[in-house]
Amino acid sequence: MIKKPARVFFFVFLVVMMVSNRLSHGQDDSVMLKRFFTEALVKGQSYENLRYLCKNIGPRLSGSANAAEAVTWTENIMKSYKLDSVWLQPVYVPKWVRGKKESAKIISSSGKTDVNVTALGNSVGTGKKGIQGNIVEFGSLEEMKKHGDEVAGKIVFLNEPMDLSLYSTGRMYGKTGNTRYIGPQEAGKLGAVGVVVRSLTTSMDDFPHTGATDYGTETNRIPAVAISTNDAVILSREIAQDPNLEFYFRTNCEMLGEVLSYNVIGQINGSETPDEYIVFGGHLDSWDLAEGAHDDGAGIVHSLEAMRLLKDNYRPRRSIRAVMFINEENGLAGGTEYAKMAQQNKEKHVVAIESDGGGFLPMGFGINASDEVIKRVQSWSPLFKPYRLFVFEKGYGGADIGPLNDLGVPLLGLEPSDQRYFDMHHSAKDVFEIVNRRELELGCASMASMVYLIDRYGL
Amino acid sequence: MIKKPARVFFFVFLVVMMVSNRLSHGQDDSVMLKRFFTEALVKGQSYENLRYLCKNIGPRLSGSANAAEAVTWTENIMKSYKLDSVWLQPVYVPKWVRGKKESAKIISSSGKTDVNVTALGNSVGTGKKGIQGNIVEFGSLEEMKKHGDEVAGKIVFLNEPMDLSLYSTGRMYGKTGNTRYIGPQEAGKLGAVGVVVRSLTTSMDDFPHTGATDYGTETNRIPAVAISTNDAVILSREIAQDPNLEFYFRTNCEMLGEVLSYNVIGQINGSETPDEYIVFGGHLDSWDLAEGAHDDGAGIVHSLEAMRLLKDNYRPRRSIRAVMFINEENGLAGGTEYAKMAQQNKEKHVVAIESDGGGFLPMGFGINASDEVIKRVQSWSPLFKPYRLFVFEKGYGGADIGPLNDLGVPLLGLEPSDQRYFDMHHSAKDVFEIVNRRELELGCASMASMVYLIDRYGL
Repeated sequence: MIKKPARVFFFVFLVVMMVSNRLSHGQDDSVMLKRFFTEALVKGQSYENLRYLCKNIGPRLSGSANAAEAVTWTENIMKSYKLDSVWLQPVYVPKWVRGKKESAKIISSSGKTDVNVTALGNSVGTGKKGIQGNIVEFGSLEEMKKHGDEVAGKIVFLNEPMDLSLYSTGRMYGKTGNTRYIGPQEAGKLGAVGVVVRSLTTSMDDFPHTGATDYGTETNRIPAVAISTNDAVILSREIAQDPNLEFYFRTNCEMLGEVLSYNVIGQINGSETPDEYIVFGGHLDSWDLAEGAHDDGAGIVHSLEAMRLLKDNYRPRRSIRAVMFINEENGLAGGTEYAKMAQQNKEKHVVAIESDGGGFLPMGFGINASDEVIKRVQSWSPLFKPYRLFVFEKGYGGADIGPLNDLGVPLLGLEPSDQRYFDMHHSAKDVFEIVNRRELELGCASMASMVYLIDRYGL
Repeated sequence: MIKKPARVFFFVFLVVMMVSNRLSHGQDDSVMLKRFFTEALVKGQSYENLRYLCKNIGPRLSGSANAAEAVTWTENIMKSYKLDSVWLQPVYVPKWVRGKKESAKIISSSGKTDVNVTALGNSVGTGKKGIQGNIVEFGSLEEMKKHGDEVAGKIVFLNEPMDLSLYSTGRMYGKTGNTRYIGPQEAGKLGAVGVVVRSLTTSMDDFPHTGATDYGTETNRIPAVAISTNDAVILSREIAQDPNLEFYFRTNCEMLGEVLSYNVIGQINGSETPDEYIVFGGHLDSWDLAEGAHDDGAGIVHSLEAMRLLKDNYRPRRSIRAVMFINEENGLAGGTEYAKMAQQNKEKHVVAIESDGGGFLPMGFGINASDEVIKRVQSWSPLFKPYRLFVFEKGYGGADIGPLNDLGVPLLGLEPSDQRYFDMHHSAKDVFEIVNRRELELGCASMASMVYLIDRYGL
């Protein structure tokens, strides 16, 4: 039996709960989603935000002045939304610089042919003279290892095309990505003097596509470049015709050590369980070759806009946090530091959501979590049907939120259509002009909707 | 009891049936779909076909030399596939020509401002002097009718933006399309001297988007142009500031009567019921302002490639027909003539499928047919799931196949994502470069797959 004062308290508590419920959850879910989508499509700010990030700030490799400018800009945008708090989380990031323009030539008995290359991220430079030597081609890392005794003293050409027969270009990338990521390390082990990697792209064009490489513990750190797919075809043909073919390339990149940068974090405090966090974001850094419009400017403006839509239309039970991670491309320092902070502060993260698949047509969410969580998310799929999000499957969350998974946090990744993604990925083609306004806006509303549903029903 | 020779015959018949079954239907459906998709993605010809159609032939308005060239080119492509028959169906089409470059100006007390306009298809020209007069703005046809007494002697500006809050841009077009299609007719009835229609596009840009207008039986046929969305905003602002504002435009278009053209038809004869037809296609004509890459070059190469994939991988029970319709844009003569022929010849059409939504990411098929047919098609949706086609709903078939619906033929329309469609629709932006190779190829395989399933299981 409850004593009288306790009964009065309980009654008051019930009334408060009901009122609060009406305030925050009285709307039908489909009405709330419709509101997010309508506002994003009719009065959205994401497209103009992206224009600013791309055109006024531009490429923003970790440690660069542009990256610092992007930190300040993002902080100011979130402050303008009148969130409960906006702050910078210090993160030490590697400062790798490309230096002056790179060059490369195929050198045959009949002459020299210029080809399009670019240094792989984090790779060492060649020095002023460049490197020149006999070049040997392999179709895969496995093939190179099989012929390990033919590599010493040579430049290795890893010419593995993406497997276009797959529907998912992300899966293609997963399959071929190691030629770039550990190819130079593996070639170094075998005594090679340099590496040329066929660009990881679904298109045939003249643009070299960069991306990080990792020397690991290998001490023979050799210069490494990506070559455009068109030039990979030419190079392969020339090698077939002339086994003594030589290749020359010069890169001017260098690693300058670590510098201070920041994750940018904005928060709306939860009205009921403020010590439970729903976190979502994208990464603020980009490669230096273009504006990082899709990768991951889109993820940044998706997240900013989702935060704005939530702030203006909904009062969350849990604390909602948008994180603009720094240094996804060549270090993952931001994501690593964020998870460390969450662990140290014993913060309970209900979920982490990332948008790092570009600003293309949203198809759904990949879910890296238990079957139970997947089923819960799938139960909301009818709400997304009017906006043609159909994919709610076991899948990938995102690189920056990966470290949170080690703490047992369920991960979700916004899944835009990936058919166009690797056409431009990490190349000079990743500019504002190739982003479609409506597709971008639909991604913002999709993010806001998923955060809303998780806050309302838990995971 | 069956007599001996009859029994032998029956046995032979059974064996033949089994073998034929093995040849044509022995493969698991998912294996067959995988084959279509893999071949389209890895060894597809659609992208290079589209390049030729756009770059070597170009714009192909009905009755133009380019349209005639496209007829011959398509015929030759289908002949090269060694179909059972390829032929031209004569169709008389209207020959409307735009003439020399159009021009327009806003004339205010403070000066003249050039704006971007283009004549609506089938409209009359202004004559060499152009027309000039006071301009009156309305937000819709309804508003114009309400103020019908303010129109006589003036130029009408129909400034109705598309309703961006809708998810489907096709639905937006359906909602606003009449401002262009019957706006000039309605304004003519009210005594207007000219019409300026805000371009039907989802984008804010400087490109006027054309499209057909229909004077119906109205005898006051007044010149009509589309104005770019950016200039529509400027014009509206100027009108608000100055009710005496004048507008000038000059168009040089004229209707030159009818000329002979053709539908191009290719056929594989059915192995079991050759008198049943499955027909699919797109339209060969395009507007004259660009290359008609998405509208409807994509539908043409989708259909050519689907035919090639079917021919190379499958032996159909029913007769399969690909039709490249002529004159969808400004007359529908090809679609009308095809249905007339089908009716005269008492051909039994099982289904008609059209691709006229561009070469974008395929999402599924719209179905204009009975609930029973819709359910049948939906029962195949698991086969399409690996390729992320999820939409199999009551919907639109296509304009060219519309006349077949009057004969009771079920219609299907390939549904690519329409988010980008009206950015470029009927404008100078509809060029080869904005078509994504993989998205186009997925559409080809989607078409081939649907034809295969309908052939195998009926509707």
